[in-house]
Amino acid sequence: MKFFSDNAASVHPRVWAAMAAADAPDHGYDGDHLSQRLDAAFSDLFGRPATALWVATGTAANCLALAAMVPPYGGVVCHREAHIETDEGGAPGFYTHGAKLILAEGDGAKLTPETITAAIAPIRDDVHRVQPHAISITQSTEYGRVYTPDEVAAIGALACDRDLWLHMDGARFGNAVAHLGCHPAAVTADAGVDALSFGFVKNGGLGAEAIVFFGEGRADALVDTVRRARKRAGHLQSKGRYLAAQILALLDGDLWLDNARAANAAATELAIAAGDRLLHPVEADEVFLVVSPAEAAALRAAGFDFYDWNAPAGAPGAARLVTAWNSDPTHVAALARAIAAL
Amino acid sequence: MKFFSDNAASVHPRVWAAMAAADAPDHGYDGDHLSQRLDAAFSDLFGRPATALWVATGTAANCLALAAMVPPYGGVVCHREAHIETDEGGAPGFYTHGAKLILAEGDGAKLTPETITAAIAPIRDDVHRVQPHAISITQSTEYGRVYTPDEVAAIGALACDRDLWLHMDGARFGNAVAHLGCHPAAVTADAGVDALSFGFVKNGGLGAEAIVFFGEGRADALVDTVRRARKRAGHLQSKGRYLAAQILALLDGDLWLDNARAANAAATELAIAAGDRLLHPVEADEVFLVVSPAEAAALRAAGFDFYDWNAPAGAPGAARLVTAWNSDPTHVAALARAIAAL
Amino acid sequence: MKFFSDNAASVHPRVWAAMAAADAPDHGYDGDHLSQRLDAAFSDLFGRPATALWVATGTAANCLALAAMVPPYGGVVCHREAHIETDEGGAPGFYTHGAKLILAEGDGAKLTPETITAAIAPIRDDVHRVQPHAISITQSTEYGRVYTPDEVAAIGALACDRDLWLHMDGARFGNAVAHLGCHPAAVTADAGVDALSFGFVKNGGLGAEAIVFFGEGRADALVDTVRRARKRAGHLQSKGRYLAAQILALLDGDLWLDNARAANAAATELAIAAGDRLLHPVEADEVFLVVSPAEAAALRAAGFDFYDWNAPAGAPGAARLVTAWNSDPTHVAALARAIAAL
Amino acid sequence: MKFFSDNAASVHPRVWAAMAAADAPDHGYDGDHLSQRLDAAFSDLFGRPATALWVATGTAANCLALAAMVPPYGGVVCHREAHIETDEGGAPGFYTHGAKLILAEGDGAKLTPETITAAIAPIRDDVHRVQPHAISITQSTEYGRVYTPDEVAAIGALACDRDLWLHMDGARFGNAVAHLGCHPAAVTADAGVDALSFGFVKNGGLGAEAIVFFGEGRADALVDTVRRARKRAGHLQSKGRYLAAQILALLDGDLWLDNARAANAAATELAIAAGDRLLHPVEADEVFLVVSPAEAAALRAAGFDFYDWNAPAGAPGAARLVTAWNSDPTHVAALARAIAAL
Repeated sequence: MKFFSDNAASVHPRVWAAMAAADAPDHGYDGDHLSQRLDAAFSDLFGRPATALWVATGTAANCLALAAMVPPYGGVVCHREAHIETDEGGAPGFYTHGAKLILAEGDGAKLTPETITAAIAPIRDDVHRVQPHAISITQSTEYGRVYTPDEVAAIGALACDRDLWLHMDGARFGNAVAHLGCHPAAVTADAGVDALSFGFVKNGGLGAEAIVFFGEGRADALVDTVRRARKRAGHLQSKGRYLAAQILALLDGDLWLDNARAANAAATELAIAAGDRLLHPVEADEVFLVVSPAEAAALRAAGFDFYDWNAPAGAPGAARLVTAWNSDPTHVAALARAIAAL
Repeated sequence: MKFFSDNAASVHPRVWAAMAAADAPDHGYDGDHLSQRLDAAFSDLFGRPATALWVATGTAANCLALAAMVPPYGGVVCHREAHIETDEGGAPGFYTHGAKLILAEGDGAKLTPETITAAIAPIRDDVHRVQPHAISITQSTEYGRVYTPDEVAAIGALACDRDLWLHMDGARFGNAVAHLGCHPAAVTADAGVDALSFGFVKNGGLGAEAIVFFGEGRADALVDTVRRARKRAGHLQSKGRYLAAQILALLDGDLWLDNARAANAAATELAIAAGDRLLHPVEADEVFLVVSPAEAAALRAAGFDFYDWNAPAGAPGAARLVTAWNSDPTHVAALARAIAAL
Repeated sequence: MKFFSDNAASVHPRVWAAMAAADAPDHGYDGDHLSQRLDAAFSDLFGRPATALWVATGTAANCLALAAMVPPYGGVVCHREAHIETDEGGAPGFYTHGAKLILAEGDGAKLTPETITAAIAPIRDDVHRVQPHAISITQSTEYGRVYTPDEVAAIGALACDRDLWLHMDGARFGNAVAHLGCHPAAVTADAGVDALSFGFVKNGGLGAEAIVFFGEGRADALVDTVRRARKRAGHLQSKGRYLAAQILALLDGDLWLDNARAANAAATELAIAAGDRLLHPVEADEVFLVVSPAEAAALRAAGFDFYDWNAPAGAPGAARLVTAWNSDPTHVAALARAIAAL
Repeated sequence: MKFFSDNAASVHPRVWAAMAAADAPDHGYDGDHLSQRLDAAFSDLFGRPATALWVATGTAANCLALAAMVPPYGGVVCHREAHIETDEGGAPGFYTHGAKLILAEGDGAKLTPETITAAIAPIRDDVHRVQPHAISITQSTEYGRVYTPDEVAAIGALACDRDLWLHMDGARFGNAVAHLGCHPAAVTADAGVDALSFGFVKNGGLGAEAIVFFGEGRADALVDTVRRARKRAGHLQSKGRYLAAQILALLDGDLWLDNARAANAAATELAIAAGDRLLHPVEADEVFLVVSPAEAAALRAAGFDFYDWNAPAGAPGAARLVTAWNSDPTHVAALARAIAAL
């Protein structure tokens, strides 16, 4: 009973079916009829003109977007526990040719206008200091927290004031929207987000994410750069139609939302069982809780697999549990009981 | 009836089956049981210790291998019509952090020890000149030509003498081995190749290539670098088991060779029809031939799709026809007849 | 009697005097009163608004200018014997983060609209090909040839048509202007040059070159980028006033032109002696001539130091002789006699 | 009366004399007889084999050394207030092709084995995390603090244990050695330092620093890389003999130490006057003290120029005063009196 991560879950049957349906030869790269439908599909979803490019991984999506936003001599503000800072093996440095990640604070890996300002206000505007050019936030965050539309909009307003781009790492964007119950544009385009890494891999896909640029404004300038950089990074797959097929299948009938809701519901079930053990409110599909080493061992002995996590000060230990679109209800219920019984 | 390229052909049914069979959750990235089998599978195939890493594209495979071989201030010798020089959107410059491609000559995009030496002998060994660190050859070449084992070995000997790494871009490696009828090691490890980009996408795969390092020698030093650089380039897919599954399916029972033989046979059928029109001997799955604009138009009017090509001096025009593992025999026969009738 | 190169000649006494005069403490970097005078000095010289930044070397000047003109995924058209291609140790690849040098032909290392077009016309505008973003020409060229105002203007017109930046490597700009006898703007700003690496080191300076941007047009966009990249490359010296002092001293009273005329005159004296041996017309301070190995040895035995050069087809050998602002007239006369006597 | 920084002070007369003496033409780049003497001069100074390369700036020295130590996918541990992190405009990212600075804590910008360990111990050794490859410390630090030989040796031992390179940013190395009164090797080679950026610009030079590699051990492997990277960065000046001349003049008769002692003595005089106002013990030539805005204004009104500094919590304001090798004793005495009278 695996609760390691949603990132290696099975592929949804409708995604498989869509890929199979794409098997007839078509134009290579993104010249096929499915890839050509992406802009329209995302424009429909967000209710405004959007341009979307597929790539295989969230790391590539994030870094291609950021590299178009920031010159090599510039910087990107992000949380000190952001995935781009801690878990992408230095990919931002590679894609941006050495731009700097400017680290900011915030509970649950959420930035606020105040913490962003605290990070950048001391940066004197001269050539000796790396200047910020963009902000990157993660929705839902690395601790499973969700920004509300107002919270994103406040950051968007700051970005606009300071002439910074705003990027959203949406590896678990679906979980955030499912939690909020809002229109997907409310926490993105409406709130000042210029580009979104829209994650599908953790939500029923196989190997396709979308970089979505919201127009018709300044974000248009990013698209050509990303298109060329995607090829230059070896991410322009010749059989791109199979990536487009995955994305379209997940958008179709809001399968992405249904999948995210299922994962969130499973996490909520665990959260209720965890009660006071929770380290963070559970708003998406990740549950962080205090467990002693003995308790963790007991859970594992009972057949549950998960990662240990850094324990906060004063706690005997911690664990991370991640659900997925297809978490087995009986496994989830069993784990909830086991946690409650600790 | 499409003869554009083999790079967007359908996926082989056994590859689909293998991917479906990999659907159960497993460890992420390359920690799954299929990815863990790759080293053994390629060691078996080549009859010696080998290490293999999957990536989604040939461009990524080539550039990750080269970036491990050459420092940013160094150079890679390649043919002036090599794919890495002409068709990868500058990816070698990105991955190597600005190393130089040192261009050499050769008929049919084939390098020889003589042409390589002509390119590098004038390079004075001082800090003002970019020094060569590696040689990259394409097998089969961009013009569908195939290096014999002796030809590769001669280049391998030069590489060894000059202390250069030897890389092989094997986007169509299967077609070359099918043509030669030799052991795959005879044109790679036995001949001094350190790393091979072993192509599967053009040969029945969906989105998986292998970078194969031949040990147990100096190539071991490259593996750790490539492993880290793959992550840093956003090419470490979390559901890597589906890439490993593709590769293992194509290795199983030498499906990769069967597929390549089928494509080669179709190209040979076209080559016989083309006769004196051929610009290059047909040794793999690509056919380059002289056709006037009117003749090209006639072929297209008859339902055949293909790319125009740069005509050599004195010719009225040229075309490139590419077959694939699943070229329809009736389409091939029809095209052969149409060419013969021009 | 050294005729190796002008790049290690002595420093002009007026340059020494100006540096000594700058010795009082002042603001660091380029905040001092001399650095602040550069824009006005170059605006005066060129008769239009100009912005100028000092750096220590021509390689840094060239590469900083080019890196502001071309994105990492783009290319710069230059001659295949351009200094940036052959003699800067890969610096363009470093500064541009891997952009490509697109090589073109031309007698005497001079590009023409025709040779530039031949290089870039075949580049299909898609993401698989590196697109040109700039042209770089060398004035005077690596073979001591000089572009006339009309020749530069023709390239400038092409650059404008194709929306390319035009950079001039003027390591020996003074020699070119001295030869032409024209206004310095006639072969630069008037002819469409956006940025000029104005060389002083080979012309009486110690370690200061200027990157000059001609406004008030599109080149303004480059200045901020170069200013930041200069710091990022470690080229913003804290005692920058000594670099500004060198440049101002050489501009003062057109010392740069006097120095260049002296070097050109010495070269011309050698050229007359060389007669039919000349490989290129002598228009600046470099003389390329056919000499057999025995003749070269004889000259060296007589006390003359110089570099051998690649002999053209059919010639027994070749040599390069370079004069300088302070070439000793008796040495020059002696060498001229020795050449005539061969 | 300027106390802004030592980085724009006048050039020492013996440095001017040495440069003038180098004026005769010689081989270019570092082929001249002065540049060729550097290895011996530094080997003598440190009492062991050393290799030394000149560059114009401390930023270039630091970043060239670090780039040879760390692969692009790696990291360098430094203090969060280290010059390379805060004041080099992103140069480390440029030179290392995007490697990460891993920030550690420590009073007065001094690292300790404990703070370094705290920074790197949590870094799991997998491809998702950037691994440390080097440590960089500043001697004297950005707050004018000095590492003792034992303190450096403790860090050197940690570096050795963890297989990390150890770099020392010695922009004010002279001030540190003058303070310690020890042999220069005691805080460098003897203590495990592999490469030292030995600063001369702030200590009487014009535009020359040395990167010193201590052999005969593993540091030899760095030298060739730095030599090539120096050219590639445009830092190989053709008239390098004038840089070597500066360095040799400052080494001659330990002028570098005399100059540093003079600067330190002036700072000590100010420190005594400042008394309880000091924010850090004064061990080199920098004095950080608490002053209210009104007090700072009063000092400025009295003719003293200096930079404001970030005030620590609870203080009304702060200032940084920097002395230099040639600080005028009457100015220093006057400032000391003025501070004491606040």
